[in-house]
Amino acid sequence: MGPRIALDAMGGDSGPAPLVSGALQAVNDNDHLSVSLVGDAEQLCLELARIGAGDDPRLTIVPAAEVVEMGEKPMDALRRKRDSSIMVAFKEHKAGRVDGVVSAGNSGATMAAAIRCLGRLPGVVRPGIAGPFPTLRGPVLMMDVGANVDCRPRHLFQFGVMASVYHEVCFGTASPRVGLLSIGEERGKGNTLVRRTHDLLQASDLNYIGNIEGGDIFSGDIDVVVCDGFVGNVCLKVSEGLAEALGRMLGDELSRDLSSRLGYFMSRKAFARFKKRVDYAEYGGAPLLGLKGCGIICHGKSNSRAVKNAIDVAADMVGKDVVGRIRSLLAAGGLAPGPEMITEAVVGGK
Amino acid sequence: MGPRIALDAMGGDSGPAPLVSGALQAVNDNDHLSVSLVGDAEQLCLELARIGAGDDPRLTIVPAAEVVEMGEKPMDALRRKRDSSIMVAFKEHKAGRVDGVVSAGNSGATMAAAIRCLGRLPGVVRPGIAGPFPTLRGPVLMMDVGANVDCRPRHLFQFGVMASVYHEVCFGTASPRVGLLSIGEERGKGNTLVRRTHDLLQASDLNYIGNIEGGDIFSGDIDVVVCDGFVGNVCLKVSEGLAEALGRMLGDELSRDLSSRLGYFMSRKAFARFKKRVDYAEYGGAPLLGLKGCGIICHGKSNSRAVKNAIDVAADMVGKDVVGRIRSLLAAGGLAPGPEMITEAVVGGK
Repeated sequence: MGPRIALDAMGGDSGPAPLVSGALQAVNDNDHLSVSLVGDAEQLCLELARIGAGDDPRLTIVPAAEVVEMGEKPMDALRRKRDSSIMVAFKEHKAGRVDGVVSAGNSGATMAAAIRCLGRLPGVVRPGIAGPFPTLRGPVLMMDVGANVDCRPRHLFQFGVMASVYHEVCFGTASPRVGLLSIGEERGKGNTLVRRTHDLLQASDLNYIGNIEGGDIFSGDIDVVVCDGFVGNVCLKVSEGLAEALGRMLGDELSRDLSSRLGYFMSRKAFARFKKRVDYAEYGGAPLLGLKGCGIICHGKSNSRAVKNAIDVAADMVGKDVVGRIRSLLAAGGLAPGPEMITEAVVGGK
Repeated sequence: MGPRIALDAMGGDSGPAPLVSGALQAVNDNDHLSVSLVGDAEQLCLELARIGAGDDPRLTIVPAAEVVEMGEKPMDALRRKRDSSIMVAFKEHKAGRVDGVVSAGNSGATMAAAIRCLGRLPGVVRPGIAGPFPTLRGPVLMMDVGANVDCRPRHLFQFGVMASVYHEVCFGTASPRVGLLSIGEERGKGNTLVRRTHDLLQASDLNYIGNIEGGDIFSGDIDVVVCDGFVGNVCLKVSEGLAEALGRMLGDELSRDLSSRLGYFMSRKAFARFKKRVDYAEYGGAPLLGLKGCGIICHGKSNSRAVKNAIDVAADMVGKDVVGRIRSLLAAGGLAPGPEMITEAVVGGK
């Protein structure tokens, strides 16, 4: 039996349509996969019928009466809505009826539901979100991109360990290069958190290449970027906003004279290839790491292709047992810094 | 007599050539302007002669024997190199022989020399660097972009006040819209620093529009973005790195087939306009705010056009008396939060 994935079919900005359609694309592409659509049974039934998948045995419906909306406070929402689609999806996971969860909904609520239902892996202080970014070569994984806004050195250290395991296992990268996001490459550069984290990473068995700057993220020379969730989320949003603004500015200019308009038409294949190369939809989703289970967050704006890719990412993470790999690595203490180092970094020994 | 600007003619990645040439462009463009070139007198003399400006009375040389290199630690370097070009430039300013300083060199050393020679304005806790970013409409000013990596709420509050004054005076914006960089628009979102700063900004007379996200920076709907220097510097570098990576990826794709290559050739005017629109060289430099004087930092990679624009920015800041405006505003206490609010925000009252 292949991986079984639960999809929060009510989350996301555009309702169930792209989610259900993405699930169908995923099972059509991978025969061994099955997807549980979690949400309003009636709506989902109609949606499945609409796309001609009403009888598909690989797509089942798990009813959930409520939805956590995008703007809601995660903790409040989960307390009030015990039967929300995101909670029900993770309860399915906890009960062993699925192997992973994909959500395009409220990411704070997704993380909170995952922690509540699955729990942390032994030794993990703070689970986090590892966000993939396109670069000139292969993807770079930034962790954390929003789950933990106020961090300590040990949290950042573990982000580095977990994202490194994920990169190695899922992207097949031998000894991923780990960089610490700072504002200068020298050891003493950065804020207090970064300076203390540097010492932990330096003493680890990770392939730690030192501080990196924001501009290095997209170079393809780094595989894992370590940062706190505030900085990581700002980077993610800045990147999206800038790419969009640049696209609009270039579009403005290209439409301003006839020669440019014709030129654009002639280059349209190149623009299509470029779009595919930088489109978040191609990268699927961002894995939650540090949990006793598999959760994937995808963009609220996800189209069916992005949802399909996120389900693939979840299936890949399950198939390659990323969780087991992180668990055994932490249990063996192989990459963990010693307790005296943690104390030193936290109290600021050097 | 027009503004007199000192240029650290030894800073920057490419030596004196683009700096001296930028100075000549600036005085040629503005008859009232004069520029003191600070650095190795022999080199600068030769460079002036080379571009046929050896006898230009508007360009004078102020000798300085040493240079702070890009990789040096600012404090160490200033201590060891008392006759460095950046220190001499700010000493000229302190002595009243020039009205402002422009530097493309080590930005940490520039800030440190500025604080040492000019001093802080009364009431300013931390001077900072206000970085201009291109947007879909007009420039947005982000403060701080690198001078202060560990901040408290009152620091961020003053960044908002000072950058708002600068935007109003230099860009002619009535009541600039100030946003606090966070990871969600709701009041409770963000890290501890941001949540506490929010209360200070909310209670001020600034045109504070609340938390903004990274993606909003480039929308043109904000004039001033408030953040600490670590986050601001990361944003700056991420933006530069991403713009470069996207440009290279698009270039790759455009050169891959004949039709696209032809199309690119036909659209070359559009690409040129686009480049000009997003080129940092067009934006001149980033003002240091909070000092008893005028300092402008420009990119280490600045070409002569960027240097010329940075000198213009300095002249504009001097001509419009930004420093006097910030000084009188702070003295009047008009935009400052009361002491009880500061205490509350710092100890985390709510």
